[in-house]
Amino acid sequence: MSIGETPARSLARPRALRLGDRVAVLSASSPADQADLSVGLEALRFAGLEPVLYPSAHERGGTRHYLAGDDKLRAADLSAALADPAVSGIAFATGGFGAQRTLAAMDWNEVADLRPKVLVGYSDVTAILEAVAARLGWASVHGPMVASSGEATHYSFGSLLRTLLHPEMAMTTHYPQAVALRGGTARGVTLGGNLTMLTSSLATDTSLPARGGILLIEDKQEEQYRIDRMLTQLRRSGYLDGVAGIICGTFTRCGEPDQIQEVLAERLGDLGVPLIAWADVGHGGRQQAFPIGIAAELDADARTLRLLDPPLVPGDSDASDHGAA
Amino acid sequence: MSIGETPARSLARPRALRLGDRVAVLSASSPADQADLSVGLEALRFAGLEPVLYPSAHERGGTRHYLAGDDKLRAADLSAALADPAVSGIAFATGGFGAQRTLAAMDWNEVADLRPKVLVGYSDVTAILEAVAARLGWASVHGPMVASSGEATHYSFGSLLRTLLHPEMAMTTHYPQAVALRGGTARGVTLGGNLTMLTSSLATDTSLPARGGILLIEDKQEEQYRIDRMLTQLRRSGYLDGVAGIICGTFTRCGEPDQIQEVLAERLGDLGVPLIAWADVGHGGRQQAFPIGIAAELDADARTLRLLDPPLVPGDSDASDHGAA
Repeated sequence: MSIGETPARSLARPRALRLGDRVAVLSASSPADQADLSVGLEALRFAGLEPVLYPSAHERGGTRHYLAGDDKLRAADLSAALADPAVSGIAFATGGFGAQRTLAAMDWNEVADLRPKVLVGYSDVTAILEAVAARLGWASVHGPMVASSGEATHYSFGSLLRTLLHPEMAMTTHYPQAVALRGGTARGVTLGGNLTMLTSSLATDTSLPARGGILLIEDKQEEQYRIDRMLTQLRRSGYLDGVAGIICGTFTRCGEPDQIQEVLAERLGDLGVPLIAWADVGHGGRQQAFPIGIAAELDADARTLRLLDPPLVPGDSDASDHGAA
Repeated sequence: MSIGETPARSLARPRALRLGDRVAVLSASSPADQADLSVGLEALRFAGLEPVLYPSAHERGGTRHYLAGDDKLRAADLSAALADPAVSGIAFATGGFGAQRTLAAMDWNEVADLRPKVLVGYSDVTAILEAVAARLGWASVHGPMVASSGEATHYSFGSLLRTLLHPEMAMTTHYPQAVALRGGTARGVTLGGNLTMLTSSLATDTSLPARGGILLIEDKQEEQYRIDRMLTQLRRSGYLDGVAGIICGTFTRCGEPDQIQEVLAERLGDLGVPLIAWADVGHGGRQQAFPIGIAAELDADARTLRLLDPPLVPGDSDASDHGAA
């Protein structure tokens, strides 16, 4: 059993959502499919939350087909949603491409000293979750988008709602279908998400190294040699130095699973830390919510992630942790 | 007319090749097509050079299909070729993937204090050329591989031979088919190559920022949003701060040229430096040799790159510049 050298401390946690809470819906990335978006908005309303739409959520890609409006618009939406005290959380409409452009257009001074609120998304949104951890010291939630579609989305939505509304019930996550590539247990603060995004933020002011952390990586449509190249860059840059444990989620349409697993085992196995693959987090369809910035213990043999703090601050009070920007 | 703030000084230049010179042929990346390799070796011999084959040139990808042998083998080949005084230059057999893994396995102490010798390659080999500039202070040549195939390879081969054997005749390169996206002239030291490779080396100890340089970028099979994302990372990381001028080569199978040009103009045009696109350098088929690490002047309006020093040290003596590691 290997335990991280320093006690793992969660980042500043937002308060849990409550029925009736207003949740900002915007895109920091690509235009959302409007039909899928409208279904997702209804699902949020069914759950008792009140979505508040920002202009980027309805952008159709007029500036560039893969951008939900220009960089200023997307950054303004994100800043406004972070700052608006009437909004309790931010659910990203969709991913795609553009989050790093949004970050480059952000003025972080505008959002300093705010109380943490929960942000939810994955894929391209990884860059945003990493940025709020690095720049604001906030925890967040890696989970489905509002305009997510596909099969069994009730599974992902159910897991997300439990985390957001009843965080004290979301302390332990089991990944029974996962494979332990290296056994043991490790403690650290959760981080990570989409591998391409983590790599694309290296050397920028929103990158957060994995030292002392339980790192999640997942990806979609990246061939084996690209996965290898990204892991090589993470290694060479020092990003992986001192990582406590690694959870590999799904690698969807990345080629033969055997070959992907071989690359993960080879490029990550020699780090000597607990390592599992094929957790149901990421682009594989149904996925479990993965809290970011929370002290946790990974048991690779049991394929279980146990949080040491509730991922959001539970209860009916207005309490949240203090930001640690 | 904008001129770089500091006088541009070439990196340490290797001596020009002479008839009868031995040239190491190896792969730091993927396995070479053996039929194409044997054609390329004959072409080198026709030119009066003597290729010396290293084990990686004949590797078939037994370790992993996209690697010419394991990392130690490729790094050992590269180190041996750099150190062997009987070898006057290194021509890479092919590109593909793996150069960064080779670099991670290199012991730079083994190759310190050597006299510069010319290295030739492009694509994945960009990472090697960047590394010898960053770690050894050497100039090199961005040009075709030994196992290059396709149409009109005599054009690329002819341009390369002129640069290697008669560098004093290779002082000015014209790109008549290029488009000036931003006019003006600029002086700086040439650098760059494959955009994916430059981005994949960010935050590592072999990355060389573009400050004060005339930067070449080109790519193959990277969609518009990926090109955008890489340029965004180069911007955000500070890599492009102070760049003097930019030459965009070919972007092959990257989608509609209009869309690529739009992204290049938008993401690079606001840097305010001379900028041309579609120079015949890179994966577009026939390409002109592009010396790396040489003081030069880019005239974007004339679409001309004029070197201020011969790219290799000409003449029959054994002289080369001193290394500046």
